[in-house]
Amino acid sequence: MRAAVYHGPHRVEIEDVPTPEPGPGEVAVDVAFNGICGTDLHEYYAGPIFVPTSPHPLTGRQAPLTMGHEFSGTVAAVGPGVDGWAVGDRVAVEPIHRCGQCPPCRAGNYNVCQRIGFHGLMSDGGMAERTVVPVHMLHRLPDSVSLELGALVEPMSVAYHAATLGEPPADGTALVFGAGPIGIGLWFALRGKGLENVYVVEPSADRRSAVEALGARTLDPTDVDVPAFVADATDGRGADAVYDAAGVRPAVETALACVGSRRPMVSVAIYETPLETPLLNLVMNESRIQGSLCYTAADYEAVIALMDAGTYDTTGWVEHIALEDVVTEGFDALHAGRKTKVLVDPTR
Amino acid sequence: MRAAVYHGPHRVEIEDVPTPEPGPGEVAVDVAFNGICGTDLHEYYAGPIFVPTSPHPLTGRQAPLTMGHEFSGTVAAVGPGVDGWAVGDRVAVEPIHRCGQCPPCRAGNYNVCQRIGFHGLMSDGGMAERTVVPVHMLHRLPDSVSLELGALVEPMSVAYHAATLGEPPADGTALVFGAGPIGIGLWFALRGKGLENVYVVEPSADRRSAVEALGARTLDPTDVDVPAFVADATDGRGADAVYDAAGVRPAVETALACVGSRRPMVSVAIYETPLETPLLNLVMNESRIQGSLCYTAADYEAVIALMDAGTYDTTGWVEHIALEDVVTEGFDALHAGRKTKVLVDPTR
Ligand SMILES: [Zn+2]
Ligand SMILES: [Zn+2]
Ligand SMILES: [Zn+2]
Ligand SMILES: [Zn+2]
Repeated sequence: MRAAVYHGPHRVEIEDVPTPEPGPGEVAVDVAFNGICGTDLHEYYAGPIFVPTSPHPLTGRQAPLTMGHEFSGTVAAVGPGVDGWAVGDRVAVEPIHRCGQCPPCRAGNYNVCQRIGFHGLMSDGGMAERTVVPVHMLHRLPDSVSLELGALVEPMSVAYHAATLGEPPADGTALVFGAGPIGIGLWFALRGKGLENVYVVEPSADRRSAVEALGARTLDPTDVDVPAFVADATDGRGADAVYDAAGVRPAVETALACVGSRRPMVSVAIYETPLETPLLNLVMNESRIQGSLCYTAADYEAVIALMDAGTYDTTGWVEHIALEDVVTEGFDALHAGRKTKVLVDPTR
Repeated sequence: MRAAVYHGPHRVEIEDVPTPEPGPGEVAVDVAFNGICGTDLHEYYAGPIFVPTSPHPLTGRQAPLTMGHEFSGTVAAVGPGVDGWAVGDRVAVEPIHRCGQCPPCRAGNYNVCQRIGFHGLMSDGGMAERTVVPVHMLHRLPDSVSLELGALVEPMSVAYHAATLGEPPADGTALVFGAGPIGIGLWFALRGKGLENVYVVEPSADRRSAVEALGARTLDPTDVDVPAFVADATDGRGADAVYDAAGVRPAVETALACVGSRRPMVSVAIYETPLETPLLNLVMNESRIQGSLCYTAADYEAVIALMDAGTYDTTGWVEHIALEDVVTEGFDALHAGRKTKVLVDPTR
């Protein structure tokens, strides 16, 4: 079968590889769509970061590896000892290998497992015609949820998990910094949680237009005094939750000037370096910065339920490409900011 | 009467001023001891910062003003309409003027009142023989609590409030960065909350000796790999709560490398500038930075109860000086790091 194999920085090859077979407790999935995310770009341009160069403690695998951790598909084969799943079942895959034994795992927070491994970074992933996963990674998609949306469950769960950590009341005001895929996912998640007053702060006019077309209210921070706007919109209370999905200093600074007393800024960005952060803002109104990483199964189920309810819409920000085009139309296009979200379709 | 009056930077004069009389709802307090804190130093060397140069919205006052917001004393006179207080009552004063109407005040968090005023910064304070305060500022001291300890209720409440925001379990591990008065107060507060495993991280050998003499375990961050030590001491869990009472970049960096998953670093420092902060640490283990400011009445009562129980000890870190010596033996000595905590005794 065909697969996009990571060999090292700037070296992802579309190769013929053996079709994998499910072992005990495993299931083979024929991939329908696999999304490309910022982590993949980091591996491609500046990696290996997550891809191991010696055997990973949980998966035993190392580069070269098939990429892809955001995918949907249909069950193609079921390994020994697997109950409850059959060929043809439509699934979204939650790609976290967890140790089950570290302190976070024992507390149920396997998203911050100290030995975490991602299927598609630490084992052969979804940028291929077929991939094999342990059965615990499977989430069933209702008929109402397309396989296109299914491939978006992973990034939308990243955003949903962060949205939840912000604990915004339904009648509150939330601010999302950055209108990339996670920012868009935050907007959907917050709307799905019943918030009416959500503003997306984004300097790029193109990205603002894209989220406005989905129904979002936006603010251009190069044009509007965002903290003053928020103070006015909240009778001086400040935002009930602020989300940084941009990961750059101006966003963090403005976000911390908008957050209300005793309320959080949730960080759901990969900060490439330490940023100069106005910690005094946190002290002066007892606000906080809360980190958010990945998701657990509950987030997957919540996102799938919201997709079933019709909350999510891929219009205008999601594009499909063939496996052969993953570098040029995928990594390079995303890296250059020409696209927002790209799904690789290995059936094309 | 004699008072230490703030006129501007480097201009604090010991002057004869009229003895104040209590108005309706007010009480006059003969000051026993008044502590000097970092805020006072900032006003003296780099102010005015908090001291208003136009009438304050709550107090109507502006410089020149008598300094001093950390004090104890005895009730000397009671104004019209004051019930429950009598001449001779021993008190600690909680020096917060609050508006009662802003969003934080309405939520009960008057410590982050948007129009907050401090007695001793926005009205004539405790570096004087006598001062007049609204009755809501009074907290009764039990006979067991000395007037010396009474003057420390204010900074110890700053620390107690922060200690509480860290939500450490009694069987958990806490780390305090900085062994100044707030760091010492954190150590007492955490011990008072029943924590056995509290480590004070402090590079100064003198300050380490001082807190060790109180019974604290210390770590020298210039000698010990603090994150490795903490990982080892907690079976890899990380600290349950970390407190930054140092306010400098190395402390914040190390603190964020020690904090456990889903646990807080509480910031209770006045950061003079934005610091380069490794926000990625927060994301990777879903920890958080929580700001902490001042206290409310509940913190005062909790600290006084712990003082009554014998938790606090002033040996080796608290010194007394006369009002006349406030600049040389107070501000200058603290600024140079020659003393840890200085109480002004206006009766000397
Ligand atoms: Zn990803
Ligand atoms: Zn684990
Ligand atoms: Zn103070
Ligand atoms: Zn207020």
